[in-house]
Amino acid sequence: MTTDLSAIIPTFAGGTIDRADQVRVNPERLKEAMMRPNARLLKLDGLSPVFDAAGDLAWAPLYEASPDNDLLLLGIDGDTPCFAELNGAGAAMPAADPRLWQSLGVLPPEQAAIYATARSLVDWHARHRFCANCGQPTESRKGGWARQCNKEEGGCGAEHFPRTDPVAIMLAECEGKILLGRQPRFPPKRFSALAGFIEPGESIEGGVARELWEEAGIKVRNVRYIASQPWPFPSSLMMACTSVTDDPTLTLDEEEIEEAAWFSLGEVKAAMNGDPEAPFIAPPPFAIAYNLLKNWVEEQEG
Amino acid sequence: MTTDLSAIIPTFAGGTIDRADQVRVNPERLKEAMMRPNARLLKLDGLSPVFDAAGDLAWAPLYEASPDNDLLLLGIDGDTPCFAELNGAGAAMPAADPRLWQSLGVLPPEQAAIYATARSLVDWHARHRFCANCGQPTESRKGGWARQCNKEEGGCGAEHFPRTDPVAIMLAECEGKILLGRQPRFPPKRFSALAGFIEPGESIEGGVARELWEEAGIKVRNVRYIASQPWPFPSSLMMACTSVTDDPTLTLDEEEIEEAAWFSLGEVKAAMNGDPEAPFIAPPPFAIAYNLLKNWVEEQEG
Ligand SMILES: [Zn+2]
Ligand SMILES: [Zn+2]
Repeated sequence: MTTDLSAIIPTFAGGTIDRADQVRVNPERLKEAMMRPNARLLKLDGLSPVFDAAGDLAWAPLYEASPDNDLLLLGIDGDTPCFAELNGAGAAMPAADPRLWQSLGVLPPEQAAIYATARSLVDWHARHRFCANCGQPTESRKGGWARQCNKEEGGCGAEHFPRTDPVAIMLAECEGKILLGRQPRFPPKRFSALAGFIEPGESIEGGVARELWEEAGIKVRNVRYIASQPWPFPSSLMMACTSVTDDPTLTLDEEEIEEAAWFSLGEVKAAMNGDPEAPFIAPPPFAIAYNLLKNWVEEQEG
Repeated sequence: MTTDLSAIIPTFAGGTIDRADQVRVNPERLKEAMMRPNARLLKLDGLSPVFDAAGDLAWAPLYEASPDNDLLLLGIDGDTPCFAELNGAGAAMPAADPRLWQSLGVLPPEQAAIYATARSLVDWHARHRFCANCGQPTESRKGGWARQCNKEEGGCGAEHFPRTDPVAIMLAECEGKILLGRQPRFPPKRFSALAGFIEPGESIEGGVARELWEEAGIKVRNVRYIASQPWPFPSSLMMACTSVTDDPTLTLDEEEIEEAAWFSLGEVKAAMNGDPEAPFIAPPPFAIAYNLLKNWVEEQEG
């Protein structure tokens, strides 16, 4: 069996709403969307999602938005304009709330994608209230998809756009086994794929090779892209890759990686099945590392 | 013939220098690298490269750096620490200097990657002298790989990292032809692959489908990743993809796309060969769009 790669849709990557970029940039159309009687507001508790009785994302009529907050146009769903409030909540680090992780794991893909978009943007606005170029205050523009430094109040006028940080997350394969590691902050027994930010001046493939060299001391070849996933903690684009090495000798960067090891097909399958005898606990299904492991198992068994 | 995808190394993506992240974060090791007699400085004219008589990137001894400028550690090449000066040059838009384009097209891959890294970082520092979170001044840290807001001078202490913006650049295929378009700023007769930024809350595959819908009015499936390239104008990560559509009817976003059309294998080959009878002029070989066309031609002829 060959895996249909285009069928890999990780959590947060299943967005189907029309992002309506032509409405964002047109103040009249944006106003018209806000005035529509069916316009609705995504409920958020700070950066956290709010669920209705059925476990779906909760929505309110748009008039419940605070007049003090700017609005973010999430998009148009059918004929329903969907907004979120720029409520000022920001956090540089992911929330460690187990209830959040659990509820995200069961949200339908299109709802997870809407929450991911809202969370990343609300957070970005909260942490980018000033112009990085001149230090003056900035204001939300384009339905929340930009901020602008105010020239009339002495600023430089620069326009700033939401940030998305590309991150490579990768397996290395050697003699039928794959490399997984533990970060110090992981829950006990959890192992996952190694990962790191792609730097300026670097390709995805170059970043994969550099990270595996820096963190695990291995030289890889045949870097192959598998799938991608937006990750809203705070705003990454996860790009999952595999690679191959001939020498399994590990030299760990102990600041980043507490422990790393090579695992066999049987061990990976046991972990993904939740077998209590498995040598490690697999990453949760809503993390793209899970898709990467699943894809590897399927390729081995193909 | 099947294309060996891992062999696609676009210009700027061929970096081989050790980025030495363990030196960046260690002030003593960083100082030791700066003091080494063989430490060298990449010559830059603002953001533009400087070439030596052989057409290679020009270097100077590190002591020629201005004492007023912070230094960026580009990496360690063999045992040679390589730096660039944070000279304050910044530009939000790509340079339209034809000499720059021409010289970049003939630089060896590892030199193009070094220039790409230096240009993106020098530019980022120039346009991020203030904290986006609180508006206070920031200072270069970690050998130029971060900036920090100064708490002792009343700032919030936030750490900021260089920005890399993921961009999808893509072909759509229909009935043996591919879709190419013209942006208003292109030189006459130039056609290239359509492209757009990946947004927060979106996968690469989702971004490709959205951009082709917004810009050309087509619905695509089977989005397939081909290769990536860092693009230092100012700091993008280009991710080249192909896709398939069943309906070639185009509806153009005329703000973004001046003209778009479907081109046959013969037409694409003629353009890539520089045939004056070709219906369009192909993108230059150092742009990843060229690799995308070349890969498509090879797949068709496989
Ligand atoms: Zn400004
Ligand atoms: Zn600050």
